[in-house]
Amino acid sequence: MSRPNAASDKTVRRRGRDARRLARSERNTVSQPYIVRNIPPSEILDEEGLALIEGNAETVLQETGIEFRDDDEALALWRDAGADVRGERVHIPKGLARQLLSSAPSQFIQYARNPRRSVRIGGNATVFAPVYGPPFVHDLDRGRRYGTIEDFRNFVKLAYLSPAIHHSGGTVTEPVDLPVNKRHLDMIYSHIKYSDKPFMGSVTHPDRAADTVAMAEIVFGKEFVAGNAVTLNLINANSPLTFDDTMLGALKTYARAGQATIITPFIIAGAMAPASVAGVLAQALAEGMAGMAFSQLVRPGAPVVFGLFSSTMSMQSGAPAFGTPEPTKVILAAAQLARRLGVPFRSGGSLCSSKLPDAQAAYESAQSIWPAVMGGVNFVLHGAGWMEGGLSSSYEKFIMDADQLAMMEVLAAGIDLSENGQAMDAIAEVGPGGHYLGCAHTQANFETAFYRSTVANYESFEQWQSEGSLDAATRANGIWKEMLSGYQPPVMDPAIDEALRAFVENKKASFPDSNI
Amino acid sequence: MSRPNAASDKTVRRRGRDARRLARSERNTVSQPYIVRNIPPSEILDEEGLALIEGNAETVLQETGIEFRDDDEALALWRDAGADVRGERVHIPKGLARQLLSSAPSQFIQYARNPRRSVRIGGNATVFAPVYGPPFVHDLDRGRRYGTIEDFRNFVKLAYLSPAIHHSGGTVTEPVDLPVNKRHLDMIYSHIKYSDKPFMGSVTHPDRAADTVAMAEIVFGKEFVAGNAVTLNLINANSPLTFDDTMLGALKTYARAGQATIITPFIIAGAMAPASVAGVLAQALAEGMAGMAFSQLVRPGAPVVFGLFSSTMSMQSGAPAFGTPEPTKVILAAAQLARRLGVPFRSGGSLCSSKLPDAQAAYESAQSIWPAVMGGVNFVLHGAGWMEGGLSSSYEKFIMDADQLAMMEVLAAGIDLSENGQAMDAIAEVGPGGHYLGCAHTQANFETAFYRSTVANYESFEQWQSEGSLDAATRANGIWKEMLSGYQPPVMDPAIDEALRAFVENKKASFPDSNI
Repeated sequence: MSRPNAASDKTVRRRGRDARRLARSERNTVSQPYIVRNIPPSEILDEEGLALIEGNAETVLQETGIEFRDDDEALALWRDAGADVRGERVHIPKGLARQLLSSAPSQFIQYARNPRRSVRIGGNATVFAPVYGPPFVHDLDRGRRYGTIEDFRNFVKLAYLSPAIHHSGGTVTEPVDLPVNKRHLDMIYSHIKYSDKPFMGSVTHPDRAADTVAMAEIVFGKEFVAGNAVTLNLINANSPLTFDDTMLGALKTYARAGQATIITPFIIAGAMAPASVAGVLAQALAEGMAGMAFSQLVRPGAPVVFGLFSSTMSMQSGAPAFGTPEPTKVILAAAQLARRLGVPFRSGGSLCSSKLPDAQAAYESAQSIWPAVMGGVNFVLHGAGWMEGGLSSSYEKFIMDADQLAMMEVLAAGIDLSENGQAMDAIAEVGPGGHYLGCAHTQANFETAFYRSTVANYESFEQWQSEGSLDAATRANGIWKEMLSGYQPPVMDPAIDEALRAFVENKKASFPDSNI
Repeated sequence: MSRPNAASDKTVRRRGRDARRLARSERNTVSQPYIVRNIPPSEILDEEGLALIEGNAETVLQETGIEFRDDDEALALWRDAGADVRGERVHIPKGLARQLLSSAPSQFIQYARNPRRSVRIGGNATVFAPVYGPPFVHDLDRGRRYGTIEDFRNFVKLAYLSPAIHHSGGTVTEPVDLPVNKRHLDMIYSHIKYSDKPFMGSVTHPDRAADTVAMAEIVFGKEFVAGNAVTLNLINANSPLTFDDTMLGALKTYARAGQATIITPFIIAGAMAPASVAGVLAQALAEGMAGMAFSQLVRPGAPVVFGLFSSTMSMQSGAPAFGTPEPTKVILAAAQLARRLGVPFRSGGSLCSSKLPDAQAAYESAQSIWPAVMGGVNFVLHGAGWMEGGLSSSYEKFIMDADQLAMMEVLAAGIDLSENGQAMDAIAEVGPGGHYLGCAHTQANFETAFYRSTVANYESFEQWQSEGSLDAATRANGIWKEMLSGYQPPVMDPAIDEALRAFVENKKASFPDSNI
């Protein structure tokens, strides 16, 4: 089959090619800020099932209770709200958590320093963010090694350059070459400097949360930050049924500053929750409802997101297993439970246990990205780059995952039912036994009709072989290097950059390095 | 984390282990015959969108018409039914196809020679079948080469041994070492001999379809075959809007024998149909409705399935591209259109363009297996082993895909909301800050709580490295060899085997070999 003919006039053709090339390069930097879903969310439970799970969560909160550890203020807030507090155990009477949650917004905007990059969290919006947390990085050239601030900046840059990644994320890798008590400063600065997409704040200490807010105030202005979410912050529960003072401290700091939090039970089923899907759901919903309700006690109206991160446990080795089908069901049902509560929902994105960017990694990642997209998840963390059970950020997998995320944008856009989409004239024009290559509709649509993968190879076996029989990971290796070598930082007001650097330097000088 | 303790009495423990081992080995040979879905199908179009597409299909049938080539009988049947036949072009007035389709069963049983393997096609049932059609095979040891009858038998054996593959399929690879005009005899015999799962018949010539029916009569008895579907047969349309005499001949042979057919437009969008999802859907539905209605003209009540196979075209090279998001949307919408028509639906399963069983292959396969499962497809062809755009049957990919299919069974089973599934006692027992490893619920459920992948590696990086840093494909290579070396054929009545062999030998002797 030959390439459809372009216009016959050479000049027109060249001008058309230039315009198309420009349009393609624009697509690479000016992405859609977030996905507005045009397909209904898939469901796995009916209303009866959802009510059963939520009822169970409320029973757990009332009967078993949930612990808020080493935080007298938290216990006092709960006591004042009408909970039955015994020691550090908070028994939340049925109905109270839901009642407190009524002040939480069902959706909100997280602002980016580039207003065109601001994202909506909730409703029919879906936002993809990169991997969060790995202490290691992995690439095909150097294998697996500890992450550094250079790796951190590289992943920020790659996320910035990826059209279907809407968010700069948070700990894209741990920069373990920097002291634990100061590295958050370089991390936040890197997100602001090397990207103009929205980002996540530090949650490892209340002071680091406060530093995040202070740096955001330099960028957005104090007044704007007080009234708007400019950071999104990951608060994990210690499952089962416990919040510790570190996370509670960060939660309080962010909620008081009007910043958004994601309350996420982090569950290995069989270890931190029952070895059953409905059991995981009831416990996680109890934890999420308690944490989100607490955010509303701290500041009614503070933006808050229900998150759920679950894997199964290999019942033989005790290791967590990603890419198994039970967490897939958890994601679909939890997204429904969040909609029923009227809060945005966050899940994992492209999770895997594989130690390589191989077929295992891809199959496993599908087990979390597909239910996230089909289930209508609002904020998808770990959308790209997660490898080895979250221990490694993989350069090659980042590229391959990002390609998949772009395909998910196409899927979530639904089916174009416009006259052009219906293509009835084309069917009539071509008729039985004809072909569509040269018809007017194809000519008008061929540039944009189908998603073009950045990684996949569609060539013939012989051509592919003649080019070295490369696998997908090897092609991705070339792509991330090319992206980084062509990276240009987004514009930033030099005065703001200066002020941020000064803040970071002053902070670093004000107390000694420590790795605790 | 340690393995949960078994019962303390040694004898009980040993007996328990034996029972579990038996249960596991049973799982490997006596699989669930097919999936009964316990989750609702995902939807991408609303009723208005579906009505629009079906209306467009009916417009195409009435205005543009569809060609039934080189088959006067077909034209006569259409004329008698009230269609406007001009030459070979059949214009089907709006409403006629749907009216003819009212005699088609909404679901039916395809019988296997082992009654426990019979499958239901339609309704809330999903059946997975292996790859169909590739002239090449591929494995990591020998690379890519032409398929042989030995490879054919190997894939039949692997499908037989795979618990989540419910069907033996058809042309699992082309045995190109056998003459074209006789190879169907060895293919059908191999399906019957080396498996006891249901199988697909030959469609490459009406005589070969008749041979398929004759061999089925030897196995099932003439009378049984006349009244029941014991073969399922793939009739492709020549898109756009054409059926040829080969396919029509096979269709008529099977329909008259009461055997089931799948009417499948095979579409590369942009070449054989418009370069748009809604355009592909309207044309394919027109083709499917015409073909299925024709089956009812031949024999009212003949079991028939709507199939749709679509890929996109790389608009630069003209090559078909698998794993792109547009066909994903086609699958979801077409499954809805079939349900609306009241007929079973067939899609592709684990399609890919990749030349290797690598990450590209896996990501691409997810783009067709996920919508198939979420969309409620009834018969999923190419569920395992498809590689290189359908040019190769891959041994390693077969193993990895089959593992994914087993996970899909778990997903489609939905969420267990029984008392044991809810696990409320476990949550109360463990409480805040505890762990679930030793609790009664975990003890009772740990053997079956979570799906265990046959391919994935969940070990630590160091352990995985010490075992050779194998990727998934390399592990799959070991698995298929182990499966084939341990293969035991299912029992078969020696008299039937004898009669089948005699039929095949007599047929082969009755006319000369030919490769046309």
